[in-house]
Amino acid sequence: MSLTLNPEHTTGLPKAVRIVEVGPRDGLQNEKAVSLEAKVELVNRLAETGLVTIETGAFVSPKWVPQMADSAAVFAQIQRKAGISYAALTPNLQGYAAAKAAGANEVAVFGAASEAFTQKNINCSIAESLERFAPVMAQAKLDGIQVRGYVSCVVGCPYQGEVAPAEVARVAKALLDMGCYEISLGDTIGVGTPAKVNAMLDAVLAVVPVDQLAVHFHDTYGQALSNIYAALQRGIAVVDSSVAGLGGCPYAAGASGNVATEEVVYLLNGLGIQSGVDLQRLAPIGWLISEQLGKAPSSKVGLALKAKCQQN
Amino acid sequence: MSLTLNPEHTTGLPKAVRIVEVGPRDGLQNEKAVSLEAKVELVNRLAETGLVTIETGAFVSPKWVPQMADSAAVFAQIQRKAGISYAALTPNLQGYAAAKAAGANEVAVFGAASEAFTQKNINCSIAESLERFAPVMAQAKLDGIQVRGYVSCVVGCPYQGEVAPAEVARVAKALLDMGCYEISLGDTIGVGTPAKVNAMLDAVLAVVPVDQLAVHFHDTYGQALSNIYAALQRGIAVVDSSVAGLGGCPYAAGASGNVATEEVVYLLNGLGIQSGVDLQRLAPIGWLISEQLGKAPSSKVGLALKAKCQQN
Repeated sequence: MSLTLNPEHTTGLPKAVRIVEVGPRDGLQNEKAVSLEAKVELVNRLAETGLVTIETGAFVSPKWVPQMADSAAVFAQIQRKAGISYAALTPNLQGYAAAKAAGANEVAVFGAASEAFTQKNINCSIAESLERFAPVMAQAKLDGIQVRGYVSCVVGCPYQGEVAPAEVARVAKALLDMGCYEISLGDTIGVGTPAKVNAMLDAVLAVVPVDQLAVHFHDTYGQALSNIYAALQRGIAVVDSSVAGLGGCPYAAGASGNVATEEVVYLLNGLGIQSGVDLQRLAPIGWLISEQLGKAPSSKVGLALKAKCQQN
Repeated sequence: MSLTLNPEHTTGLPKAVRIVEVGPRDGLQNEKAVSLEAKVELVNRLAETGLVTIETGAFVSPKWVPQMADSAAVFAQIQRKAGISYAALTPNLQGYAAAKAAGANEVAVFGAASEAFTQKNINCSIAESLERFAPVMAQAKLDGIQVRGYVSCVVGCPYQGEVAPAEVARVAKALLDMGCYEISLGDTIGVGTPAKVNAMLDAVLAVVPVDQLAVHFHDTYGQALSNIYAALQRGIAVVDSSVAGLGGCPYAAGASGNVATEEVVYLLNGLGIQSGVDLQRLAPIGWLISEQLGKAPSSKVGLALKAKCQQN
């Protein structure tokens, strides 16, 4: 028996969603270090699943983020696949130059909607932090390289607690005006629930077109998928996620990290939304990298498919 | 700064939700056995969190469900708290008599919306399985004991795959007509996503009043909370869940079980929906029972709160 979805229940949802796989960067950046070989294999295998955007590394100070110290080597050793954008995080012009030299197809800058977080994290105001991106934006424009803008702490901050939706909108709009092609709204400490997410989206959608927005949820409190569903109901069609739920929470060691790509694909499949990602190919990649990290996969889809696989 | 929820984003959601805590029964039934003392302590501590319904045990064949063999002793040894309904699963008149003797405040019967599942599980048709409940319903009515009706496999079956919404509606209505005061719709293998859940609810809501419905989601594929959010959007105000995500999936050993009560309470708190359950009291109970079972808590809220607690 095949079950047809009632169009009423998918009205307002996007027909297709682009997943931005952030496991090799945002994920591994918050895990213990894995070998260069493991990273290269991870990216190469992810490229075989149907994913079209893979955040592959970061060009940041190895003093602060030792896990990303070999990003140039990762970019050098991966087998490029046509149609895939291999992205890099670049906090400044030096990082940007290194990313460009490494052949990153796009770069990303990282802002926050919380003054307290920005002060604690990089010791300046939000306004100052955005100014620092200006040289990156200018050079990327000259080079024809697209820049993605992350906004963190969009529904809560580990230092100041609540974050006003208007602040998120202000930072998102500023990044858009600086030239970012897409703004990824990050609940980087995973405290959001759909009502707060909707309140935040009300403010942001008033100043940024829906087709230039992405959502980025961490699953610290198990709420990520509900929030993604709420964002899909608002028409947002780009979702960041991390294979095997790679990543963690620097503010609560042992807590869960990014939402697992497997869970997102399962949700999209169930909603009849195309992502192009093959779950059967994706799941074993999650098992492998989890094994390499010596931990159980955080993805429940991954666990369930593995359990089924072992039964057969 | 206090953040007021935009009423627009909570319109249609219930103002209050009753949580039916199923950890001591549906949860522990699918875990390795724990001691009688641990079960009694679990129920007693859950009673201190604000929960008003606690499924405390099952009066079923110890041959099939050895984990529930000491349910009479659990009922005998718990400290009853006024205002709390201590519930028991009773598949037949013998089980019902034992539950009554043990002082269960309410009982539950368990049907399925899948013919294949019913045949495999209890070797009869759905219609026959419902007939078998008739003596329980009649006696409970005489005794003035309320009966809850579970329907399993409401969006999928481990044997037949798809389950037609009309079948779910038929079984739910039959249980209602037999005298059940509430029907709990169970995605017992956790395969649902909001579109399928909504299609199922379309059919059920056409024949069962919304205030007599509960939802019961397993988190096998990490989708439970999105489905609960979808059900809340339909006005359903009773949610089954299991502290620490106790439970498992008999069809995929190692996979996740019931949705964690901690996650549900976190979601409800975020949506401004009253449940009366104190998360700070609940979380340590999840840590304890997980420790007694020798496993990591499946609740991400539990993990995050524990991690924070250990930091301080």
